[in-house]
Amino acid sequence: MSRHLTLGPGSEFDAVRDLLARWGPSAIGIGDDGAVLDVPAGSRLVVSTDSTVEEVHFKAAWLTPEEIGWRATTAALSDLAAMGAAPLGVLLALTVPARWRGSLGALAEGIGAAVSAQGAPIVGGDVTDGDRLALAITVLGHSRRPLSRAGARAGDTLYVTGALGGPGSALAAWMSGQVPGAAARARFAHPEARIAAGQWLAAHGATAAIDLSDGLAGDVAHIAHASGVRCLLTLDTVPCMEGVGISEAIVSGEEYELLVAAPAIDVRAFAAAHGGLALTAIGEVRAPAPGDGADVVAEQGGARVTLPRAHDHFAEAR
Amino acid sequence: MSRHLTLGPGSEFDAVRDLLARWGPSAIGIGDDGAVLDVPAGSRLVVSTDSTVEEVHFKAAWLTPEEIGWRATTAALSDLAAMGAAPLGVLLALTVPARWRGSLGALAEGIGAAVSAQGAPIVGGDVTDGDRLALAITVLGHSRRPLSRAGARAGDTLYVTGALGGPGSALAAWMSGQVPGAAARARFAHPEARIAAGQWLAAHGATAAIDLSDGLAGDVAHIAHASGVRCLLTLDTVPCMEGVGISEAIVSGEEYELLVAAPAIDVRAFAAAHGGLALTAIGEVRAPAPGDGADVVAEQGGARVTLPRAHDHFAEAR
Repeated sequence: MSRHLTLGPGSEFDAVRDLLARWGPSAIGIGDDGAVLDVPAGSRLVVSTDSTVEEVHFKAAWLTPEEIGWRATTAALSDLAAMGAAPLGVLLALTVPARWRGSLGALAEGIGAAVSAQGAPIVGGDVTDGDRLALAITVLGHSRRPLSRAGARAGDTLYVTGALGGPGSALAAWMSGQVPGAAARARFAHPEARIAAGQWLAAHGATAAIDLSDGLAGDVAHIAHASGVRCLLTLDTVPCMEGVGISEAIVSGEEYELLVAAPAIDVRAFAAAHGGLALTAIGEVRAPAPGDGADVVAEQGGARVTLPRAHDHFAEAR
Repeated sequence: MSRHLTLGPGSEFDAVRDLLARWGPSAIGIGDDGAVLDVPAGSRLVVSTDSTVEEVHFKAAWLTPEEIGWRATTAALSDLAAMGAAPLGVLLALTVPARWRGSLGALAEGIGAAVSAQGAPIVGGDVTDGDRLALAITVLGHSRRPLSRAGARAGDTLYVTGALGGPGSALAAWMSGQVPGAAARARFAHPEARIAAGQWLAAHGATAAIDLSDGLAGDVAHIAHASGVRCLLTLDTVPCMEGVGISEAIVSGEEYELLVAAPAIDVRAFAAAHGGLALTAIGEVRAPAPGDGADVVAEQGGARVTLPRAHDHFAEAR
């Protein structure tokens, strides 16, 4: 049996045929009304949808088409990392304006590279016309015991992977008409989905996890609210990219690093298992004071400080 | 445990909270990075993504927001019908321009009604800003033996559910500045996903199936190409909506009726099991002549006729 069904005639299907030729073994079973997959026995299905829209999440001038494809796909796959799930497949709903048609191949190369890097085959999708380039990407994964934002317990330590601030720093440079430094730009244009790290952390006792998409200050609040706990961040311990200050790092969104709550974890064993990727303790989980409810508090230099508000698409919408 | 995680503060999450309040029990487990679902033991996972974009698939003046939500969701669920699958859940990636914000609640009501009608809970999603309203909807289902476009065999009969032509007739009226008739308009605005019919047909010997989204003339070619067979349509037998001619009915897209290939099926038993829904034999499957390859031929009044080309989004793109 062939990897794909034989598609009928028409320019819409010609475009799909071109995408499939570029993706090669990274796409399987395309051409039917739906894709058929198998979830391993004993595992649960984990699914998430994530959209990347031109002018909302990026400006075309900032990135190559390959980078746009890589970044959108990685942002979606990152949700599987946060759930501690292994990838099963990816579905793409692409809105491609006429002016983007010539870049569709390069965009597809970036998507293909990102799915290949995580062993997540493309199993379906849809291409439509529109005014802005948009990629709505659904990821499917599986896990015997998926992580959630809701499991953090008083006494857990809060850990973060990597070093923060690169994407926010790049964005700030672009927004003020400057050219970002190469390292910061690379973190924005070519993030990594911490899929292997998420599975390792789930297997080593993590109680809750989230990927940093809105920025540490906002995302830690999601864990606090979902788990019904107080999270204490010790800002002096937050790992920042070289040249980025802590106040910039904690509001830097689209990091796709993982924030996890867990009983003590061997951070050296983690780094050894993940090519030197850092795992850093940055705070702790406490029981909420009676009547206090879930919240986040932060300390810097031993003093209590107020965290800034998180990034919010709707608040800044035109 | 509550049905949803407690969401953090922010206007983006306020919008999600409003949607969840409207959906009530039609949405489950929202608020984590991913949703967790279980595929029944022995069943395979079936997934598909389908986009509906303002100005590409509909004009705002034609439909109420409820109808836009119903129709987009039904179009996506229809792919599960074509695979003979039972629904597991739905993920929504909504692009909502500022001018649509006031209609988001009504749009959500239509989405909620469509998922409730099929018992498919909303399990996740994403809301972003954009220039045009767009709904990218991913559907998840399960089946022990999913149908495909590729299984049709020489000797099978071709069947279609319902009566064709309504959506095409409504579209033609709107495009020429007229008001469509109520029945045709209803078929465009409020189609049905033939989920129960798809499962029944799979259980009663169907060898291949597709939902009619491009129009019968185009969709039958997908079965022919995927199955490597010749499909013979007998146009005199194609059921048309009252007032719609056969030439209009066979190019009417977005019907979401099912076209299936199967050995003889008891059409009266089908109708009895589906509230009187018609299942009509409209042709047969033949082996391709040597060297001829897969194709579609049509007869009308005993004479061979040529089928029109199918609807093709990209060919008509601006």
